[in-house]
Amino acid sequence: MRTLFHMWLDPFSRKARVVLGEKGLEFTLRLEATWERREAFLALNPACTVPVLVEEDGTALSGSSVICEYLDEAHPDPPLIGEGVLDRAEVRRLVLWFDRKFQAEVTKNLVGEKMIKRLRGGGEPDSAAVRAGHANLHVHLSYIAYLLEHRDWLAGDRPTLADMAAAAHLSSVDYLGDVPWSDHPAAKDWYARMKSRPSFRPILNDLIPGAPPPKHYADPDF
Amino acid sequence: MRTLFHMWLDPFSRKARVVLGEKGLEFTLRLEATWERREAFLALNPACTVPVLVEEDGTALSGSSVICEYLDEAHPDPPLIGEGVLDRAEVRRLVLWFDRKFQAEVTKNLVGEKMIKRLRGGGEPDSAAVRAGHANLHVHLSYIAYLLEHRDWLAGDRPTLADMAAAAHLSSVDYLGDVPWSDHPAAKDWYARMKSRPSFRPILNDLIPGAPPPKHYADPDF
Repeated sequence: MRTLFHMWLDPFSRKARVVLGEKGLEFTLRLEATWERREAFLALNPACTVPVLVEEDGTALSGSSVICEYLDEAHPDPPLIGEGVLDRAEVRRLVLWFDRKFQAEVTKNLVGEKMIKRLRGGGEPDSAAVRAGHANLHVHLSYIAYLLEHRDWLAGDRPTLADMAAAAHLSSVDYLGDVPWSDHPAAKDWYARMKSRPSFRPILNDLIPGAPPPKHYADPDF
Repeated sequence: MRTLFHMWLDPFSRKARVVLGEKGLEFTLRLEATWERREAFLALNPACTVPVLVEEDGTALSGSSVICEYLDEAHPDPPLIGEGVLDRAEVRRLVLWFDRKFQAEVTKNLVGEKMIKRLRGGGEPDSAAVRAGHANLHVHLSYIAYLLEHRDWLAGDRPTLADMAAAAHLSSVDYLGDVPWSDHPAAKDWYARMKSRPSFRPILNDLIPGAPPPKHYADPDF
């Protein structure tokens, strides 16, 4: 059976899970605490990051962008990176936007400080980082609304990897109850559509022991 | 004319330049000090990073991975990301290795501290970061040698985007004279082959005013 190594609230693992779901591919999920630097895991991925996808024949793929490009090439239906060359560039631009910029400005400041530090046993959240994360989140939610003014989905008229990347990050932040949805109705409407996709449901069922999500978290009508 | 916005010693800009060269595509190079947040540049790339590629018709592409995937799709000859699905995953894994891991562990600590800070007017290098950069560099040069034990080029029997990413980062560090080539003969031999490629020559001719490179820098027989 195909296996995906992941970590709770890791947006990159979540993105890979949603892509596997969209492609209709079955897989087993395995939790990996990368900070323990387990030797058998290092043999799969010397960079020691999640997600890592291990195919049935033992082939290991690491890095969410590598995994997602690979899955879209190996299982082209449905295409998640778009069709035309420029459409594909726009999808990849937005994926990068969320995986680099949103990650550095929001996810790291909120999920990293408030949850990952705790999981790793790394001390108290840095309150300046948390404040920055909250402020930056408004800018990104407005950017999502801006994109949706002329598009049904972030990169065009169909859901793509761009929506999956964005929703993966937002879902991690939303687990903490930190997304000000009521201030951003257009982003909320789009996220409700993402939440109701069958590929997205399993993510919303993750439960971190001792740290349950807010009530609205898994509800598509929130 | 196609235009590439870049910054001196930025490995991501260098990678895009080499890819344009390998594809035989002409372009004009424009220096962009992203930290000045020039309004016309922000309109091209709201993330305000280099490289940005502007095509003749005004289409702007930003992010080196977006640009390189786009160029390889729009101009498939020669293919730089490999042919088979798994070959392509291996190329992308290594590109990510250098663009994320080498960048964080080496380039940022050496080029970032010693040169970019100076260009931005941001103060003295952090000596702990510089020491870490030097130590990490040995590990990465050994990893390159390890890859080359069974391969002519980093990802297989042909030069790919993986070689271009790795050589782009190393060339930036080498501009500072900080690469201990004599300790790493296999990596040195591979880099000499990269240096002698016509696509790579223009990079080695960059000159930062007031900060010339060491003598061996542009010489393929170093």
